[in-house]
Amino acid sequence: MKTLNVAITGFGNVGSHIAQLLWQRQATYRERYGVDVRLVGVCRSRAGILYAHGLQAADLVSPNWTEGLTGEAFLQALQADVLIETGTSDFQTGGMGLVYLRHALRHNMQVIAVSKGALALHGRELFDTAKQAGLSLLVSGATAAALPTVDFVQRQLAGCEVLAIEGIFTGTANFILNQMMHAGIGFDEALQQAQADGIAEADSSFDTDGWDTAAKITIIANALFNTDLTIHTIARAGMAHLQAADMAAWRAQGLMPRLIGHITVQDGKVSAGVAVRAVDAEHVFYRVNGKNKAMQVVTREMGALCVQGGASSPQATAAATLKDLENLLKQA
Amino acid sequence: MKTLNVAITGFGNVGSHIAQLLWQRQATYRERYGVDVRLVGVCRSRAGILYAHGLQAADLVSPNWTEGLTGEAFLQALQADVLIETGTSDFQTGGMGLVYLRHALRHNMQVIAVSKGALALHGRELFDTAKQAGLSLLVSGATAAALPTVDFVQRQLAGCEVLAIEGIFTGTANFILNQMMHAGIGFDEALQQAQADGIAEADSSFDTDGWDTAAKITIIANALFNTDLTIHTIARAGMAHLQAADMAAWRAQGLMPRLIGHITVQDGKVSAGVAVRAVDAEHVFYRVNGKNKAMQVVTREMGALCVQGGASSPQATAAATLKDLENLLKQA
Repeated sequence: MKTLNVAITGFGNVGSHIAQLLWQRQATYRERYGVDVRLVGVCRSRAGILYAHGLQAADLVSPNWTEGLTGEAFLQALQADVLIETGTSDFQTGGMGLVYLRHALRHNMQVIAVSKGALALHGRELFDTAKQAGLSLLVSGATAAALPTVDFVQRQLAGCEVLAIEGIFTGTANFILNQMMHAGIGFDEALQQAQADGIAEADSSFDTDGWDTAAKITIIANALFNTDLTIHTIARAGMAHLQAADMAAWRAQGLMPRLIGHITVQDGKVSAGVAVRAVDAEHVFYRVNGKNKAMQVVTREMGALCVQGGASSPQATAAATLKDLENLLKQA
Repeated sequence: MKTLNVAITGFGNVGSHIAQLLWQRQATYRERYGVDVRLVGVCRSRAGILYAHGLQAADLVSPNWTEGLTGEAFLQALQADVLIETGTSDFQTGGMGLVYLRHALRHNMQVIAVSKGALALHGRELFDTAKQAGLSLLVSGATAAALPTVDFVQRQLAGCEVLAIEGIFTGTANFILNQMMHAGIGFDEALQQAQADGIAEADSSFDTDGWDTAAKITIIANALFNTDLTIHTIARAGMAHLQAADMAAWRAQGLMPRLIGHITVQDGKVSAGVAVRAVDAEHVFYRVNGKNKAMQVVTREMGALCVQGGASSPQATAAATLKDLENLLKQA
């Protein structure tokens, strides 16, 4: 039986869910694809673990960390076919995620990315490196997780000319906007409520200033089109300036504000950005409630397709990450 | 360069659009996948054409039919790697579609089906034959065309446990139901209007009695689960019995009727059917307007995902069919 060795870097909460789910699905992978998928190592910022014969049930209970087994030394210490990168997203330098992704793609590993930093800063370089090496660089976990984005366009709309993509990609921002419209209140008040209810974090500016959406739309654009965008160079506007009066005006016009990441393709030129747009009741985004996400893709041949929903949880992100792995297995 | 020879059977309106689009995309296929995709023959019920060196531009203008070159003799006369079956759907015997699909799958051809009859009657046999031969049997054109169904679940939800699928799969039926609610009228009156407006055909009972939805949900169930369902054995109820009073009652309760094809998986047991169900304003199907389609899939790991939209036209069906072809090329 073929074996496929998997390593997880930046191992934390999502990484643990991935390890657990991977272990649960091993028998299915053997049966369905004839491949023995083994988790051969995990590492976090200061320590790592090698599972010489693949992760076992007992390893999930009491991890046995080796200090210093991290970074490139970790990847060099094992023979991984697939890297799953789940660390912190560093949007200033790319951080360790960039180190891991570069190393993996230069050493013949398929890569499944959950962290966004490296991709939002050096996406063109990374996608090109993968393509030149004939490797996959799959990004479901780094975009909208359970809500499919890049692979939806690549598979479900294969061959179509994409004219535009727009999406609600940041659940927390959508939740706060919905509350603002529901209660007719401005941003500051809605944010305080959401923080008091434990829905928004103490510093939620990454979500509400549009950075999270910008990271995702940047990754989507670079993955699908031959663009060299970064999170810092695309147009970006957030929602912190919105007042109760804005809500009243939109309500009077029957509109609903949404924090939208958008890509437009015109005459071969691709532009992307983030902005609050008010949509009318006929728009499919009008009733994307709570923390839900959605994406609409407009094509020349098949018209507009919208996908929406998907759970937002570490479990759902883990499942989306292993979706990428399973699609690799289908081609193995 | 590798070549991939394609044949189209049941060649008519959709087939013509496929041939045209295939011809337009040949250069892209060569560039993107390194494969020379050639249309080597088409046939309809009484005649066929062989394109010895692949379809050329001039062939699109004045087809040169050979009488009698059809049926298994047609497939035997050419060396096709891929069959695209686009003929009339025969829901009593499977008709020529069944002959073509069986022959192709027993002679090492990948199959892309647009016609539904054979699949809705002998789906289990055909999917099993394909699987045993290591061949693909792709059915985007035979289900909801531009709206992805089977491949959406297989790719975007790979690895997830599917608990339920429900969908609005028949555009004409959805249109008539929307008109009934909009005008507060019964089925007979709404059908007459739709026929007068050229939206419904003279005999639209196939759509409004739920047969079209039944065919699609049967194909989806057999493709995704190990079921042996047929269009004639699943539970099926249409909308012809609905009166103006039903509309008034639903309106009073804030509900919207939808003709829904549904699959439920419980304790490993799969059931499927077609029925009119009234959904409330929070349901994503509530505002699926006009002739639009939608599908919602409930999974254990990723929650509920909904996909909706997609153009309904011969051009869109052709694009959906060539989406299946392009996904084959990705694996070639």
